[in-house]
Amino acid sequence: VFANPGTSELALVDALALHGPRPILVAHELAATGAADAQARLLGLGAALLHLGPGLANGLSFVHNARRARSPLLVLLGEHPRTHLTLDPPLALRSDALATAIDAPFVVVDDPAQAASQLRIAASCAQRRRGPVIVALDAVAMERDLEAPSAPEAVLASEPPEPPAGRLEAAASLLGAGEAVLLLGGRALEPPARRLAFGIAAATGARVLAETFPAVHDYGRGAGLIERLAYLPELARPALSQARALVLVGTPWPVAWFAHPGVEARLWPPDAPVLRVDEGDVDEAALLGRLAEALGAPALEGSEAEPPPLQPEGAAIDAAALTAAIVRAVRDGDVVVDEARTSAPGLYEALATAAPHTYVGHPGGAIGEGISLGLGAATLGRRVLAVVADGGSLYAPQALWTMAREGTDATIVILANGGYRILEIEQQLQGLPPRPAMTRLAEPAWDFAGLARSMGARATTAGTAGELSATLAQARGVSVIVAQLES
Amino acid sequence: VFANPGTSELALVDALALHGPRPILVAHELAATGAADAQARLLGLGAALLHLGPGLANGLSFVHNARRARSPLLVLLGEHPRTHLTLDPPLALRSDALATAIDAPFVVVDDPAQAASQLRIAASCAQRRRGPVIVALDAVAMERDLEAPSAPEAVLASEPPEPPAGRLEAAASLLGAGEAVLLLGGRALEPPARRLAFGIAAATGARVLAETFPAVHDYGRGAGLIERLAYLPELARPALSQARALVLVGTPWPVAWFAHPGVEARLWPPDAPVLRVDEGDVDEAALLGRLAEALGAPALEGSEAEPPPLQPEGAAIDAAALTAAIVRAVRDGDVVVDEARTSAPGLYEALATAAPHTYVGHPGGAIGEGISLGLGAATLGRRVLAVVADGGSLYAPQALWTMAREGTDATIVILANGGYRILEIEQQLQGLPPRPAMTRLAEPAWDFAGLARSMGARATTAGTAGELSATLAQARGVSVIVAQLES
Repeated sequence: VFANPGTSELALVDALALHGPRPILVAHELAATGAADAQARLLGLGAALLHLGPGLANGLSFVHNARRARSPLLVLLGEHPRTHLTLDPPLALRSDALATAIDAPFVVVDDPAQAASQLRIAASCAQRRRGPVIVALDAVAMERDLEAPSAPEAVLASEPPEPPAGRLEAAASLLGAGEAVLLLGGRALEPPARRLAFGIAAATGARVLAETFPAVHDYGRGAGLIERLAYLPELARPALSQARALVLVGTPWPVAWFAHPGVEARLWPPDAPVLRVDEGDVDEAALLGRLAEALGAPALEGSEAEPPPLQPEGAAIDAAALTAAIVRAVRDGDVVVDEARTSAPGLYEALATAAPHTYVGHPGGAIGEGISLGLGAATLGRRVLAVVADGGSLYAPQALWTMAREGTDATIVILANGGYRILEIEQQLQGLPPRPAMTRLAEPAWDFAGLARSMGARATTAGTAGELSATLAQARGVSVIVAQLES
Repeated sequence: VFANPGTSELALVDALALHGPRPILVAHELAATGAADAQARLLGLGAALLHLGPGLANGLSFVHNARRARSPLLVLLGEHPRTHLTLDPPLALRSDALATAIDAPFVVVDDPAQAASQLRIAASCAQRRRGPVIVALDAVAMERDLEAPSAPEAVLASEPPEPPAGRLEAAASLLGAGEAVLLLGGRALEPPARRLAFGIAAATGARVLAETFPAVHDYGRGAGLIERLAYLPELARPALSQARALVLVGTPWPVAWFAHPGVEARLWPPDAPVLRVDEGDVDEAALLGRLAEALGAPALEGSEAEPPPLQPEGAAIDAAALTAAIVRAVRDGDVVVDEARTSAPGLYEALATAAPHTYVGHPGGAIGEGISLGLGAATLGRRVLAVVADGGSLYAPQALWTMAREGTDATIVILANGGYRILEIEQQLQGLPPRPAMTRLAEPAWDFAGLARSMGARATTAGTAGELSATLAQARGVSVIVAQLES
């Protein structure tokens, strides 16, 4: 349980310290919710403990990300009892409205005798819904009874329901008619599901694409390459423009992240039918199997490619150099966290050639979760390689401290281009003049290495492709590598 | 306008850069909302520009503080248009529910032709309500029309209404009956209002107290000393226990911050009547004048005291040493930001002996706003002296970068006791065992000086009373002083 507790959570903290799961201290709520989101993706359940409504507000944007990543996540608050809320004490705000904002269930637990069973139900709900559940534990009730609970029963998610019968037939029909796009997300990107998709593609001529920012899946050599839908609509639209139909498994409709005047936000052709085969609570990988069966398509291995070529040692660190170095730095069993955004657009595809690893991406878009996701993975005993952007790294750098404190093995590459590059790209696309005062992280430049060292991490700076490869090879413990990109 | 913009705010950023008010870049949303809160308190209006719902979530806890500080604050978002929200793009969440959580009005502006007048109305609403207003500007609508608006009319808050006639009489009667406590907050703590309160006290024998964490008022020598109500209920309750009645001006009922089993949260005696004289939109200073008039009490100067004695140069930095050094470091016209919390409980009273300054406190309790408040004050051209706790300083340290970037004159004293001391105090009070793994910011210790330098601030460490005084005297530009307290 990643915790940034206040006074109203102290009885809970004490109970966790006595009975587990072990509370892990973080110095900012975003580090708690981001780390718990990673554990939810990797373990099937994650938990954070925050202080009242203001603590939930501070951590909420990564709970939003967890919702978009379909992460079974419990967020625990030591909340004021109702009687105290009626007095409107200084820290009171409407935590339930915060849950409403991200469409998360909000459960109030105010009876210690019911707390264990209510928490089990909340955990099952998070697993069944595959999303966050906010649990407000009445701080006074929790303080009244600190007895050890009876041993908790195992938390089991129930079997997912069957999809409506006609939907699989309709999907098979759209794919069978040819020239369809099969867009995969969620568990449909796991290697066995990919092989089913390759079989469907071979049988129907469909083009297989991955969603833009996958949440989590096993990856690397042997998984098989699936190109992902680009983030920028200008690049994504051409990939879908020839589709006669769009079949979605484990991912929502592909729409532009932002709206612009006179521009259609849906990225597929207006005359192409679109069908999402799964509902929220269906196992999309199993569903893909039934779709393959309906089409009589056997599983096929995906194509394998060579890693992108290493750039000359003295070369500047551009997207090609970065991608080549990162791919080679992945070790068998790593968790690779990808929040590289604008600096390494081809990284996802290139990671299909890396050592086998677990890929953790960034579906929700609330920026800066990469380091916190790395914290969550690293405290599971996994080695972590996280690639994050410099602007994004400033939203929750505090996660580095807990990484160091927990003695984890995590390498964090900060891609330092000295600004919010995505804003500069968008300014160009919108025909706006550059406003460097509002997009450059300069004057003064941030000393990212110094920032990392202040929290107990090692830190080095790499200015060339060769330096990047060398520092990646030498990294141990918690190591931050500041990769100086051309800005 | 303190801004942490995303792609959907770029047209707004461009318009602000062209026409003003000038956008000031911050690297985290809390720095934006905290700085804007300070300007709202000092100027009567402040503004922040954030990115969609997730950006608002990241900055929301200091908007909560602004609500508790009664700060007229505009929070602007470049929001998705309704048509785009129906497609549920990745960054969509219900921003209106975030506003509901803190009881703030939520205004949607989707017509560029109406934007200027709607913003004027929103600003008036913030000033009239004395609280935050969230304005969601349709990003597509704003992108359609970048013409310069006509010169805006001055934003004028309307005259506050009169309080109900009987309430002043009732307050005068309670005070006139003797042994009452007159608890002051808001504008009733400004020096002229204090003099009225001193007159009322002399005429009626009432005891005058200040609310625990005042938001903003002019202060220092000449203002007159008013003891404040202690934060801990164990200390606050005795100050009110002899009260036969409680009269409140500019402050809500005094209640404990947190509830505990079997403990009454109201801090005044159960048989004492309580009356709040002002409503939210009344000028509480003017009201105090009418109350004094009703009681026939002329204004009186408050008592003056000597600054607390300097401690020996080699002494450790305890509360006494800290308070003595801070009070002497205040220069005429400074803004003093006080988020010292547990480390300097007598600081507020001692600041009555400092050079004339503006005091900015921390009514909302969402922790870590001190540096951001300092940023807002410093960018008004005021010299800032901010006193913050080490645990709290980790919630939004990014404000230091913008302080450096804007060339401000700000000294930030970080009180480094190496942990969340308030949690340790509460553990003792609740009879819980110490859990240092969950309360100590140690293993590794944070290098607060290194953290500050990484953002372009100067930084020094002071280990004795003498070193603290010396570093305070030498501070210039943006200077962080890490005061090493005994932990």
